[in-house]
Amino acid sequence: MGSVLYGGIDLGGTKIQAVVIDDDNHVLGSARRPTPSQGGPAEVLAEICQALHSAAGAADVDVRALRGVGVGSPGIVDDGNVSSARNLPGWDGSFPLASRLEQGLGVQVKVGNDVQVATEAEFELGAGRPYASLLGVFWGTGVGGGIILNGKAWVGRGAAGEIGHMVVRIGGALCTCGRRGCLEAYAGRGAMEQHAQRLLRKGRKTELFELMRRRGRTRLTSGVWARALDQEDKLAQQIIERAVRALGAGIASAVNLLDVDCVIIGGGLGVRLGQDYATRIATSMQPHLFAADAPPDVRVAALGDLGGALGAALLLTASNKAS
Amino acid sequence: MGSVLYGGIDLGGTKIQAVVIDDDNHVLGSARRPTPSQGGPAEVLAEICQALHSAAGAADVDVRALRGVGVGSPGIVDDGNVSSARNLPGWDGSFPLASRLEQGLGVQVKVGNDVQVATEAEFELGAGRPYASLLGVFWGTGVGGGIILNGKAWVGRGAAGEIGHMVVRIGGALCTCGRRGCLEAYAGRGAMEQHAQRLLRKGRKTELFELMRRRGRTRLTSGVWARALDQEDKLAQQIIERAVRALGAGIASAVNLLDVDCVIIGGGLGVRLGQDYATRIATSMQPHLFAADAPPDVRVAALGDLGGALGAALLLTASNKAS
Repeated sequence: MGSVLYGGIDLGGTKIQAVVIDDDNHVLGSARRPTPSQGGPAEVLAEICQALHSAAGAADVDVRALRGVGVGSPGIVDDGNVSSARNLPGWDGSFPLASRLEQGLGVQVKVGNDVQVATEAEFELGAGRPYASLLGVFWGTGVGGGIILNGKAWVGRGAAGEIGHMVVRIGGALCTCGRRGCLEAYAGRGAMEQHAQRLLRKGRKTELFELMRRRGRTRLTSGVWARALDQEDKLAQQIIERAVRALGAGIASAVNLLDVDCVIIGGGLGVRLGQDYATRIATSMQPHLFAADAPPDVRVAALGDLGGALGAALLLTASNKAS
Repeated sequence: MGSVLYGGIDLGGTKIQAVVIDDDNHVLGSARRPTPSQGGPAEVLAEICQALHSAAGAADVDVRALRGVGVGSPGIVDDGNVSSARNLPGWDGSFPLASRLEQGLGVQVKVGNDVQVATEAEFELGAGRPYASLLGVFWGTGVGGGIILNGKAWVGRGAAGEIGHMVVRIGGALCTCGRRGCLEAYAGRGAMEQHAQRLLRKGRKTELFELMRRRGRTRLTSGVWARALDQEDKLAQQIIERAVRALGAGIASAVNLLDVDCVIIGGGLGVRLGQDYATRIATSMQPHLFAADAPPDVRVAALGDLGGALGAALLLTASNKAS
């Protein structure tokens, strides 16, 4: 066990995942709490502190013993301030998440974009370790992307990586972002659920919503989709197939532009459906790849649900600043 | 006039453009010759030497006085060897262009990808000078792309920048590359000409082919398209409009992924149609931009027809190695 400890928080729309790691990146403790669905930044802040205290408790250390805490947050992150976090309750305008958390925890806090830190975690510790350049594709409620080029994160002017809003069909399906024909309009779990509801209203049969109710869910979670596929639910297969086709076209477009070594498929659905579906996505990319004889490797994320929190902790560690 | 001189060659499918520049990047002489339409690499090589000798003559220097010569070539460029140059006659397999030219000219030769060197020319000397990161889009027979990130060319594993083969419509129009739905299938001059022929056969009226014949051309050149637009030819307007819509979606997708500071529109059509059409492309990008309130600047290439040859010469100069 290394002597210096760090905390990492993955702040998601449905859950807050916390880890405590040592400087060899070993997880010493972890905890998960639901993200408040009501209230505002203050309520979210309180839950983050709770989650971190629980993870520290599991690691048998005090939060004040941590060298620092990293947070991967949705929305636009600028110098510790978070805005446009549409998935979080009452998060209108900008909120100084880093400084408020520092006050609450008594330790140094750094905040990064959730998708970017998860990509860096896979690059440093996960499926991306053998590669210099990679594209992380996070297939969940939305479709997010993170980019590593020659060992360094590429964030552009702060908004790079929006692979979910690459256009795969001009004038196509309406996206949850309000635009048309985005990859996310076909492959985001939110859009897929809306599509399933539309087809259900048109008289198509599916077990998806029954599976949801039986599990006590109010949304078609990744687990619900995986179960429906296991049961060979025709409608679920059709919608997932459509998502895989869109992911193939969108990711191939990104590869034609960037020619990275590797594509990592993560996110709730990506991790849940696993390497079999990562391979299906690779197959679906192939007809669109310009350098068809040199496709990138396509791998499922190796860090699973902890990738985001681990990547957040890496915001504080030296290994993340190398290269 | 600087004391060290360089040569630059833009090797295109229809023309070979040569320049001689000094180390302040001033053009001292230039010459243009048609690319041979028959024969093979040896014939192309002879014409490159002729073009360079003519440019040197115009600059009143001997080719052997040049510090070196750069070539921007189509196809795949690997350590001075050029392969897959589909636009050049009889260019099957790989040809050691750099070493053969060195033998023929008696000076050092470096070969780079045509689109990438043209992008670097715009970055160093042209419309891209105010920016750290940019996407060059070369709108001509095909649609090529070059990428500069934080002052450095990004070429991936050697095949990056293929913006023309980003998918803008899954299952859409057949591209000249054999794939479906590529940006180039809507916006490449080759595909646009085929589309015009199809609509003509269906009984649509157009002056495009009459203008082509009157100019003694066998292809719908950029000049023919520009003239037809001037004459308000409805079919030409419709096809260009379709191309601009596809360029808007494809370039916006690239910007959503990379978040560059600036997009430079070059290439035969891009330069010929000018800033008015660059602005139309920007307007067409807007509905697809995820960070809609921070669009990149969109500018027409400033170096015009000489950009490729200037960029090739930059392969030899020190300024190109800075970052």
